[in-house]
Amino acid sequence: MTERTFEVREIATVSSPRDVAIDDDWGAVESLITLVDDYPAEALAGLDEFSHLEVIFLFDRVDPATVTTGARVPRNNPVWPAVGIFAQRARNRPNRLGLCTCEVVAVDDRTIRVRGLDAIDGTPVLDLKPYLAEFAPRRATTQPAWSHELMAEYF
Amino acid sequence: MTERTFEVREIATVSSPRDVAIDDDWGAVESLITLVDDYPAEALAGLDEFSHLEVIFLFDRVDPATVTTGARVPRNNPVWPAVGIFAQRARNRPNRLGLCTCEVVAVDDRTIRVRGLDAIDGTPVLDLKPYLAEFAPRRATTQPAWSHELMAEYF
Repeated sequence: MTERTFEVREIATVSSPRDVAIDDDWGAVESLITLVDDYPAEALAGLDEFSHLEVIFLFDRVDPATVTTGARVPRNNPVWPAVGIFAQRARNRPNRLGLCTCEVVAVDDRTIRVRGLDAIDGTPVLDLKPYLAEFAPRRATTQPAWSHELMAEYF
Repeated sequence: MTERTFEVREIATVSSPRDVAIDDDWGAVESLITLVDDYPAEALAGLDEFSHLEVIFLFDRVDPATVTTGARVPRNNPVWPAVGIFAQRARNRPNRLGLCTCEVVAVDDRTIRVRGLDAIDGTPVLDLKPYLAEFAPRRATTQPAWSHELMAEYF
Protein backbone atom coordinates (compact mmCIF):
# COMPACT_ATOMS: atom_id res chain seq x y z
CA MET A 1 0.00 0.00 0.00
CA THR A 2 1.27 3.46 -0.87
CA GLU A 3 0.17 6.17 1.48
CA ARG A 4 -1.37 9.31 0.06
CA THR A 5 -0.05 12.84 0.51
CA PHE A 6 -1.96 16.11 0.60
CA GLU A 7 -1.05 19.76 0.56
CA VAL A 8 -2.46 21.85 3.36
CA ARG A 9 -2.32 25.60 3.59
CA GLU A 10 -2.11 28.01 6.48
CA ILE A 11 -5.57 29.49 7.09
CA ALA A 12 -4.56 31.68 10.03
CA THR A 13 -1.52 32.60 12.10
CA VAL A 14 -0.98 32.65 15.86
CA SER A 15 0.32 35.72 17.65
CA SER A 16 1.39 34.61 21.10
CA PRO A 17 3.42 36.18 23.91
CA ARG A 18 5.38 32.90 23.92
CA ASP A 19 8.08 32.64 21.31
CA VAL A 20 9.67 29.39 22.43
CA ALA A 21 8.13 26.02 23.27
CA ILE A 22 7.65 25.76 27.02
CA ASP A 23 6.28 22.64 28.63
CA ASP A 24 3.84 24.13 31.11
CA ASP A 25 1.51 26.91 32.26
CA TRP A 26 -0.43 27.52 29.05
CA GLY A 27 -3.79 28.01 30.74
CA ALA A 28 -3.67 31.78 31.19
CA VAL A 29 -1.82 32.60 27.97
CA GLU A 30 -3.83 34.86 25.68
CA SER A 31 -3.11 34.73 21.97
CA LEU A 32 -4.52 36.07 18.73
CA ILE A 33 -5.45 33.95 15.73
CA THR A 34 -5.67 36.04 12.57
CA LEU A 35 -7.02 34.71 9.28
CA VAL A 36 -4.69 34.95 6.29
CA ASP A 37 -5.75 37.23 3.46
CA ASP A 38 -7.64 34.48 1.60
CA TYR A 39 -10.47 34.48 4.12
CA PRO A 40 -13.03 37.19 4.80
CA ALA A 41 -14.37 38.10 8.23
CA GLU A 42 -17.54 36.16 7.30
CA ALA A 43 -15.56 32.92 7.79
CA LEU A 44 -15.78 33.66 11.53
CA ALA A 45 -19.43 34.78 11.59
CA GLY A 46 -21.21 33.35 14.61
CA LEU A 47 -18.05 32.02 16.26
CA ASP A 48 -18.54 34.44 19.14
CA GLU A 49 -21.58 32.39 20.21
CA PHE A 50 -19.28 29.52 21.15
CA SER A 51 -17.30 29.56 24.39
CA HIS A 52 -14.54 27.29 23.05
CA LEU A 53 -12.70 26.52 19.86
CA GLU A 54 -10.63 23.59 18.64
CA VAL A 55 -7.47 24.66 16.85
CA ILE A 56 -5.49 22.38 14.53
CA PHE A 57 -2.03 23.79 13.87
CA LEU A 58 1.35 22.73 12.60
CA PHE A 59 4.49 22.62 14.76
CA ASP A 60 6.48 24.32 12.00
CA ARG A 61 9.60 24.77 14.11
CA VAL A 62 9.97 21.04 14.76
CA ASP A 63 12.78 19.70 12.57
CA PRO A 64 11.26 16.86 10.53
CA ALA A 65 14.48 14.92 11.15
CA THR A 66 13.51 14.67 14.85
CA VAL A 67 10.10 13.11 14.25
CA THR A 68 9.52 9.83 16.08
CA THR A 69 7.78 7.03 14.20
CA GLY A 70 7.86 4.37 16.92
CA ALA A 71 7.92 4.61 20.73
CA ARG A 72 9.69 7.03 23.06
CA VAL A 73 9.62 8.15 26.69
CA PRO A 74 7.47 11.29 27.08
CA ARG A 75 9.65 14.32 27.84
CA ASN A 76 12.54 11.83 28.20
CA ASN A 77 11.50 11.51 31.83
CA PRO A 78 12.81 8.13 33.02
CA VAL A 79 10.04 7.71 35.59
CA TRP A 80 7.55 7.25 32.74
CA PRO A 81 7.24 4.35 30.32
CA ALA A 82 8.17 4.44 26.65
CA VAL A 83 4.94 4.70 24.67
CA GLY A 84 4.09 4.99 20.99
CA ILE A 85 4.11 8.38 19.33
CA PHE A 86 0.35 7.94 18.77
CA ALA A 87 -0.17 7.21 22.48
CA GLN A 88 1.28 10.58 23.45
CA ARG A 89 0.95 14.19 22.28
CA ALA A 90 4.65 15.03 21.83
CA ARG A 91 5.25 17.56 19.07
CA ASN A 92 7.96 15.67 17.21
CA ARG A 93 5.29 13.50 15.61
CA PRO A 94 4.44 12.49 12.06
CA ASN A 95 2.84 15.40 10.17
CA ARG A 96 3.71 17.66 13.16
CA LEU A 97 0.04 18.42 13.84
CA GLY A 98 -1.00 20.09 17.07
CA LEU A 99 -4.50 20.21 18.52
CA CYS A 100 -5.78 22.30 21.38
CA THR A 101 -9.15 23.33 22.78
CA CYS A 102 -9.06 26.93 23.96
CA GLU A 103 -11.46 29.60 25.13
CA VAL A 104 -12.87 32.18 22.75
CA VAL A 105 -12.33 35.53 24.46
CA ALA A 106 -13.46 37.77 21.60
CA VAL A 107 -13.86 37.85 17.84
CA ASP A 108 -13.01 41.08 16.05
CA ASP A 109 -13.17 41.20 12.26
CA ARG A 110 -10.65 38.55 11.07
CA THR A 111 -8.99 38.01 14.45
CA ILE A 112 -9.94 35.76 17.37
CA ARG A 113 -8.59 36.36 20.86
CA VAL A 114 -8.22 33.04 22.67
CA ARG A 115 -7.06 31.83 26.07
CA GLY A 116 -5.11 28.62 26.70
CA LEU A 117 -3.72 27.88 23.23
CA ASP A 118 -0.45 25.94 23.45
CA ALA A 119 1.02 27.20 20.18
CA ILE A 120 3.92 29.61 19.98
CA ASP A 121 4.16 32.89 18.14
CA GLY A 122 4.01 32.58 14.36
CA THR A 123 2.49 29.09 14.34
CA PRO A 124 0.49 28.33 11.19
CA VAL A 125 -3.12 27.28 11.85
CA LEU A 126 -4.71 24.70 9.53
CA ASP A 127 -8.27 24.58 10.85
CA LEU A 128 -10.61 26.06 13.42
CA LYS A 129 -13.66 24.18 14.64
CA PRO A 130 -16.23 25.35 17.16
CA TYR A 131 -16.34 23.20 20.29
CA LEU A 132 -19.54 21.17 20.43
CA ALA A 133 -20.31 19.34 23.64
CA GLU A 134 -21.75 16.50 21.55
CA PHE A 135 -18.24 15.75 20.22
CA ALA A 136 -16.86 15.23 23.72
CA PRO A 137 -16.42 11.62 24.88
CA ARG A 138 -19.82 9.96 25.21
CA ARG A 139 -18.62 7.79 28.11
CA ALA A 140 -16.33 8.28 31.09
CA THR A 141 -12.69 8.51 30.09
CA THR A 142 -9.65 6.77 31.50
CA GLN A 143 -5.95 7.37 30.93
CA PRO A 144 -2.72 6.09 32.48
CA ALA A 145 -1.17 7.67 35.57
CA TRP A 146 1.91 8.93 33.70
CA SER A 147 -0.28 11.13 31.51
CA HIS A 148 -1.90 12.80 34.50
CA GLU A 149 1.53 13.43 36.00
CA LEU A 150 2.79 14.94 32.75
CA MET A 151 -0.23 17.23 32.48
CA ALA A 152 -0.21 18.38 36.13
CA GLU A 153 1.07 21.91 35.39
CA TYR A 154 0.31 22.14 31.68
CA PHE A 155 -2.69 24.47 31.72
CA MET B 1 1.43 38.15 3.82
CA THR B 2 1.80 34.91 1.91
CA GLU B 3 0.39 31.85 3.61
CA ARG B 4 2.60 28.80 3.97
CA THR B 5 1.83 25.35 2.62
CA PHE B 6 2.86 21.96 3.98
CA GLU B 7 2.72 18.42 2.75
CA VAL B 8 1.03 15.93 5.04
CA ARG B 9 1.01 12.20 4.59
CA GLU B 10 -1.50 9.50 5.45
CA ILE B 11 -0.34 7.72 8.61
CA ALA B 12 -3.24 5.28 8.79
CA THR B 13 -6.41 4.36 6.92
CA VAL B 14 -9.99 3.92 8.14
CA SER B 15 -11.96 0.76 7.43
CA SER B 16 -15.59 1.55 8.17
CA PRO B 17 -18.91 -0.15 7.44
CA ARG B 18 -20.04 3.21 6.09
CA ASP B 19 -18.97 3.94 2.55
CA VAL B 20 -20.91 7.14 2.01
CA ALA B 21 -21.18 10.27 4.11
CA ILE B 22 -24.31 10.09 6.25
CA ASP B 23 -25.31 12.91 8.55
CA ASP B 24 -26.30 10.98 11.66
CA ASP B 25 -26.07 7.93 13.94
CA TRP B 26 -22.29 7.56 14.14
CA GLY B 27 -22.22 6.65 17.82
CA ALA B 28 -22.41 2.88 17.51
CA VAL B 29 -20.34 2.57 14.31
CA GLU B 30 -17.25 0.43 14.82
CA SER B 31 -14.29 1.03 12.53
CA LEU B 32 -10.68 -0.03 12.18
CA ILE B 33 -7.74 2.34 11.89
CA THR B 34 -4.69 0.60 10.44
CA LEU B 35 -1.26 2.20 10.29
CA VAL B 36 0.35 2.47 6.86
CA ASP B 37 3.49 0.45 6.28
CA ASP B 38 5.82 3.24 7.42
CA TYR B 39 4.88 2.77 11.06
CA PRO B 40 5.64 -0.17 13.34
CA ALA B 41 3.27 -1.54 15.97
CA GLU B 42 5.43 0.27 18.56
CA ALA B 43 3.86 3.55 17.39
CA LEU B 44 0.68 2.39 19.19
CA ALA B 45 2.39 1.03 22.33
CA GLY B 46 0.42 1.97 25.41
CA LEU B 47 -2.57 3.32 23.50
CA ASP B 48 -4.74 0.58 24.97
CA GLU B 49 -4.44 2.28 28.36
CA PHE B 50 -6.52 5.19 27.06
CA SER B 51 -10.30 4.92 26.76
CA HIS B 52 -10.54 7.51 23.98
CA LEU B 53 -8.59 8.75 21.01
CA GLU B 54 -8.66 11.94 18.94
CA VAL B 55 -8.44 11.30 15.22
CA ILE B 56 -7.45 13.95 12.68
CA PHE B 57 -8.36 12.85 9.18
CA LEU B 58 -8.85 14.28 5.72
CA PHE B 59 -12.21 14.37 3.90
CA ASP B 60 -10.55 13.13 0.72
CA ARG B 61 -13.83 12.66 -1.16
CA VAL B 62 -14.82 16.29 -0.77
CA ASP B 63 -14.25 18.05 -4.08
CA PRO B 64 -11.96 21.02 -3.33
CA ALA B 65 -14.11 23.09 -5.69
CA THR B 66 -16.96 22.85 -3.14
CA VAL B 67 -14.98 24.23 -0.22
CA THR B 68 -16.57 27.24 1.48
CA THR B 69 -14.29 30.10 2.50
CA GLY B 70 -16.92 32.43 3.93
CA ALA B 71 -20.30 31.79 5.56
CA ARG B 72 -23.02 29.27 4.76
CA VAL B 73 -26.13 27.73 6.33
CA PRO B 74 -25.28 24.42 8.07
CA ARG B 75 -26.75 21.49 6.14
CA ASN B 76 -28.57 24.10 4.03
CA ASN B 77 -31.32 23.95 6.62
CA PRO B 78 -33.20 27.26 6.37
CA VAL B 79 -34.24 27.21 10.03
CA TRP B 80 -30.59 27.81 11.00
CA PRO B 81 -28.51 30.94 10.51
CA ALA B 82 -25.68 31.31 8.01
CA VAL B 83 -22.42 31.05 9.98
CA GLY B 84 -18.77 31.12 9.02
CA ILE B 85 -17.06 27.95 7.90
CA PHE B 86 -14.87 28.19 11.02
CA ALA B 87 -17.97 28.47 13.23
CA GLN B 88 -19.29 25.10 12.02
CA ARG B 89 -17.84 21.65 11.37
CA ALA B 90 -19.09 21.10 7.80
CA ARG B 91 -16.73 18.95 5.74
CA ASN B 92 -16.45 21.22 2.71
CA ARG B 93 -13.96 23.37 4.60
CA PRO B 94 -10.49 24.72 3.87
CA ASN B 95 -7.89 21.93 4.12
CA ARG B 96 -10.77 19.41 4.44
CA LEU B 97 -9.64 18.33 7.92
CA GLY B 98 -11.93 16.24 10.10
CA LEU B 99 -11.58 15.73 13.84
CA CYS B 100 -13.40 13.24 16.02
CA THR B 101 -13.03 11.84 19.51
CA CYS B 102 -13.86 8.14 19.57
CA GLU B 103 -13.64 5.18 21.91
CA VAL B 104 -10.69 2.81 21.81
CA VAL B 105 -12.25 -0.66 21.73
CA ALA B 106 -9.02 -2.65 21.20
CA VAL B 107 -5.50 -2.33 19.86
CA ASP B 108 -4.07 -5.29 17.93
CA ASP B 109 -0.63 -4.99 16.37
CA ARG B 110 -0.92 -2.07 13.89
CA THR B 111 -4.72 -1.78 14.00
CA ILE B 112 -7.02 0.04 16.40
CA ARG B 113 -10.69 -0.83 16.71
CA VAL B 114 -12.69 2.28 17.56
CA ARG B 115 -16.32 3.18 18.19
CA GLY B 116 -17.99 6.42 17.11
CA LEU B 117 -15.60 7.64 14.41
CA ASP B 118 -17.44 9.77 11.81
CA ALA B 119 -15.11 8.98 8.91
CA ILE B 120 -16.12 6.80 5.97
CA ASP B 121 -14.34 3.77 4.57
CA GLY B 122 -10.94 4.50 3.07
CA THR B 123 -10.48 7.86 4.78
CA PRO B 124 -6.82 8.83 5.22
CA VAL B 125 -5.83 9.55 8.83
CA LEU B 126 -3.22 12.25 9.48
CA ASP B 127 -2.76 11.99 13.24
CA LEU B 128 -3.87 10.07 16.31
CA LYS B 129 -3.69 11.59 19.77
CA PRO B 130 -4.67 9.98 23.06
CA TYR B 131 -7.55 11.74 24.79
CA LEU B 132 -6.33 13.52 27.91
CA ALA B 133 -8.96 14.92 30.25
CA GLU B 134 -6.65 17.87 30.89
CA PHE B 135 -7.12 19.01 27.28
CA ALA B 136 -10.89 19.22 27.68
CA PRO B 137 -12.35 22.71 28.22
CA ARG B 138 -11.24 24.07 31.55
CA ARG B 139 -14.48 26.01 32.05
CA ALA B 140 -18.13 25.33 31.30
CA THR B 141 -18.91 25.47 27.60
CA THR B 142 -21.67 27.24 25.74
CA GLN B 143 -22.81 26.96 22.14
CA PRO B 144 -25.74 28.28 20.12
CA ALA B 145 -29.09 26.47 19.94
CA TRP B 146 -28.76 25.64 16.23
CA SER B 147 -25.66 23.55 16.94
CA HIS B 148 -27.47 21.46 19.55
CA GLU B 149 -30.32 20.88 17.09
CA LEU B 150 -27.89 19.85 14.35
CA MET B 151 -26.13 17.39 16.66
CA ALA B 152 -29.28 15.85 18.15
CA GLU B 153 -28.97 12.53 16.28
CA TYR B 154 -25.33 12.66 15.28
CA PHE B 155 -23.84 10.15 17.68
